[in-house]
Amino acid sequence: MIGAEAMTRTLLGGGVDVCFANPGTSEMHFVAALDAVPEMRGVLALFEGVATGAADGYARIAGRPAGVLLHLGPGLGNGMANLHNARRAGVPMVVVVGDHALFHKPFDAPLESDIDALAGTVSGWVRRTGRPADIGADTAAAIAHATASGGIATLVLPADVSWSDGGQPADPPAAAPPAPIDTDAVEAAAAVLRGGQRTMLLLGGDAAGADGMRDGGRICAQTGSNWLCETFPTRWTRGAGIPRIDKLAYFAEGAEQQLAGTEHLILAGARSPVSFFGYPGRPSDLVPPGCRVHTLAGPRGAAAALAAVAETVAPGVPAPANPLVRPALPSGALNAAVLAEVVGALLPERAIVVDESLTASVALTGPTAGAPQHDWLSLTGGAIGYGMPAAVGAAVAAPDRPVLSLQADGSAMYTVSALWTQAREGLDVTTVIFNNGSYDILRLELGRVNAGAVGPAASQLFDLTRPRLDFVKLAEGMGVPARRATTCEEFAAALAAAFAEPGPHLVEAMVPAMA
Amino acid sequence: MIGAEAMTRTLLGGGVDVCFANPGTSEMHFVAALDAVPEMRGVLALFEGVATGAADGYARIAGRPAGVLLHLGPGLGNGMANLHNARRAGVPMVVVVGDHALFHKPFDAPLESDIDALAGTVSGWVRRTGRPADIGADTAAAIAHATASGGIATLVLPADVSWSDGGQPADPPAAAPPAPIDTDAVEAAAAVLRGGQRTMLLLGGDAAGADGMRDGGRICAQTGSNWLCETFPTRWTRGAGIPRIDKLAYFAEGAEQQLAGTEHLILAGARSPVSFFGYPGRPSDLVPPGCRVHTLAGPRGAAAALAAVAETVAPGVPAPANPLVRPALPSGALNAAVLAEVVGALLPERAIVVDESLTASVALTGPTAGAPQHDWLSLTGGAIGYGMPAAVGAAVAAPDRPVLSLQADGSAMYTVSALWTQAREGLDVTTVIFNNGSYDILRLELGRVNAGAVGPAASQLFDLTRPRLDFVKLAEGMGVPARRATTCEEFAAALAAAFAEPGPHLVEAMVPAMA
Repeated sequence: MIGAEAMTRTLLGGGVDVCFANPGTSEMHFVAALDAVPEMRGVLALFEGVATGAADGYARIAGRPAGVLLHLGPGLGNGMANLHNARRAGVPMVVVVGDHALFHKPFDAPLESDIDALAGTVSGWVRRTGRPADIGADTAAAIAHATASGGIATLVLPADVSWSDGGQPADPPAAAPPAPIDTDAVEAAAAVLRGGQRTMLLLGGDAAGADGMRDGGRICAQTGSNWLCETFPTRWTRGAGIPRIDKLAYFAEGAEQQLAGTEHLILAGARSPVSFFGYPGRPSDLVPPGCRVHTLAGPRGAAAALAAVAETVAPGVPAPANPLVRPALPSGALNAAVLAEVVGALLPERAIVVDESLTASVALTGPTAGAPQHDWLSLTGGAIGYGMPAAVGAAVAAPDRPVLSLQADGSAMYTVSALWTQAREGLDVTTVIFNNGSYDILRLELGRVNAGAVGPAASQLFDLTRPRLDFVKLAEGMGVPARRATTCEEFAAALAAAFAEPGPHLVEAMVPAMA
Repeated sequence: MIGAEAMTRTLLGGGVDVCFANPGTSEMHFVAALDAVPEMRGVLALFEGVATGAADGYARIAGRPAGVLLHLGPGLGNGMANLHNARRAGVPMVVVVGDHALFHKPFDAPLESDIDALAGTVSGWVRRTGRPADIGADTAAAIAHATASGGIATLVLPADVSWSDGGQPADPPAAAPPAPIDTDAVEAAAAVLRGGQRTMLLLGGDAAGADGMRDGGRICAQTGSNWLCETFPTRWTRGAGIPRIDKLAYFAEGAEQQLAGTEHLILAGARSPVSFFGYPGRPSDLVPPGCRVHTLAGPRGAAAALAAVAETVAPGVPAPANPLVRPALPSGALNAAVLAEVVGALLPERAIVVDESLTASVALTGPTAGAPQHDWLSLTGGAIGYGMPAAVGAAVAAPDRPVLSLQADGSAMYTVSALWTQAREGLDVTTVIFNNGSYDILRLELGRVNAGAVGPAASQLFDLTRPRLDFVKLAEGMGVPARRATTCEEFAAALAAAFAEPGPHLVEAMVPAMA
């Protein structure tokens, strides 16, 4: 058996049965192995950033890693931004980077580059397979790392190792044990929560799922503590039947207001709050002066730790459940606020929402809070171009669930070819483009960093109106049916039609810029 | 003066007056400085790979570096593939990567990553500026490195260094001296050329320009030696009035035929020929057995060394000049061969051709050889997604010259938003998309690596027809007028119309796949 087939069979045995791929010549034997091992689903992306973002979205919903197949250093480079986001999300992923044949590497051919250095910046585990006999064991080790740590494992596979005989599939790695609960931290948190001082519970990591939300809600209902969800949760379960919770604000000023007066901050899967960027004359650390920070758990195992706390401080207390309350359908001109009401009014049952709406995101939280229970995926690492690829992966992971991809115009252009993969695979993804004709977030930030008034030259670099992007044509050019909406009525009709019909759709929502 | 302004003024003083940018919050003061220093032209790209590819194309035509402004590690990651190509092209470039404020870095905010490790894989020079007082000198050092070495200099600029007072512009670096001529190598090459054995002169680097072509032609006319141009020249001057020369073939089998029987191979700016990929049972080194290799010069200074050889072996000998001979306009169904004839028939005076046509490229060389003198830019590093961005840069560098961007469909999708920048800047770029509905090169390569017959699963990963990309809609969606051509007549009419009208145009040429 050639190396590529041994790798593919080991991946399958380890539960990795989807591979998002943008292959090249050095990966041809892996591609050919897809016919020898038809249980492996190869999903073609037209750009590597789509493949890596899709694997991130897939892992968030499937709860297990996808494979990613990339072509040498440049292919890995193209996938870096979404690997950065995945690293920040703490999701498992097995990345296979094809490399030149071992005998070919000394010749410094045009595509030669330092794959290992690139991979090291985003991967918790990097290994080069040196011979076909090792490929099974190396692949199993990659799966084990990704699964146990919630991180990226990168296996560099020379072409001749891939095409040579002597490959041996390896047994799947043993299931990773759950992260242990730190009982001291549980007791300390319980003591703080019972202590009567002003306490804030900050939820994140796997505590942003349904169980964590319910246990957090029980704890706060019983103790009178406050709670917030981290700003960019990997996967946030919310809506009717789940306790309602606000997110920590993106802008530091807002977060400072939310945290003002807090005497104890308990971190359940979330990091201690810091400003997204540094700003002149402002602190990076958003913990109020004098507030004590208690780490209950990191991102993995936070839900279990929170459950233990809830059993301690709120045994038998029911979780407060958000009622099913949808906004009325608004009418008239479209803007981010009313658009959010339409989304709240129409969001289907069991939806997955992928949110890269940036400036529009703040408006979305409230009107969707009482929609049917859904999962909300966020841009965890700040590297834009995440949303449309993640929607691909989420839809592959959950073909029975509708995916709503809420996408800002500027960041849509980073990985826009994700639409083609949505069409190719017939994925049930509805993309809403917030077309405000600008990098609106940068206009807002320019003021916040005291860079002065926006002159004409600077203004050019935020403007997307000359020419204005036509996302209807862009979507149709990639095989995705699309409509444009300028009023609430048009938007509601387009969104309802998209939800009603399986397969990908795009709605271009023309909204005014905020800044 | 704040750091950002000192940097901008130092760049300008050093002749860097164009900056291809995709900025974020950490680069806002550099953006604001564009209004304080209006001589600096900021050109917005909607994706970093467009910015880096544009800077490459710019440098190839302008002969001096452009600036590139990128946002933190993810922005640099998105630009990596075209930085790889630029590194392989040996062009100068000054890359500025904004980073978090120094005081903010310890907080590991979401966008924090290892910028230095990423930058190191493509840059000959990486420096972090630690205080505003150093920014002028650091910027001048970056320009000096890029200019002297023909490489990428990356300056990492923390946001607070950028926004703080105390910046001092530095004087421009002294002009880099020309690469010295190795007189021993000149004499050795001259002796070989006069020796009567079968000798091949392989031209590349700056010897692929008009002077190098003429001197190489003089040498071969006088000595009866053979000559070839490297497979992927950075900038190849050719056409009427320039000696005609073939390129070393991309496929190893073809190159082996061209080099068969060669007893002496003289490298004038080119690397010793190696196979692009390693193939089972085939050598990577394409130098025939027993052939002696003589290095006359590296990529920089090759033209000067060649001139010295020409003065030694062919003093007073005129260069053979290719006549102006255009093919007749073909008619009927379109394919890569007749498409090349239309290009040869219609190529305007002083054109710049950017070639990322991949499988179609072989057919283009012959029919365009007698067109008016033009420059031909190639994909030097094999990282696809180079062509359309490079066309942006070439057009910015030479606003008085028409740019023809010959682009394969699959690779077009990597950096397709370059079309938007072409529209924004009103660049005189005509893009021809070779739409064959496939990753045709991979189908060819699959056979060459002995990966067996293409099964249905593998075939999926090469196919771009379900759905077929509609490049007319894609171009119109980004503000570029576009037409589709299925016959020679339609293609000739569309190409002539695009050449006749200033500004960007796209012609989608529907051609059959080869494999």
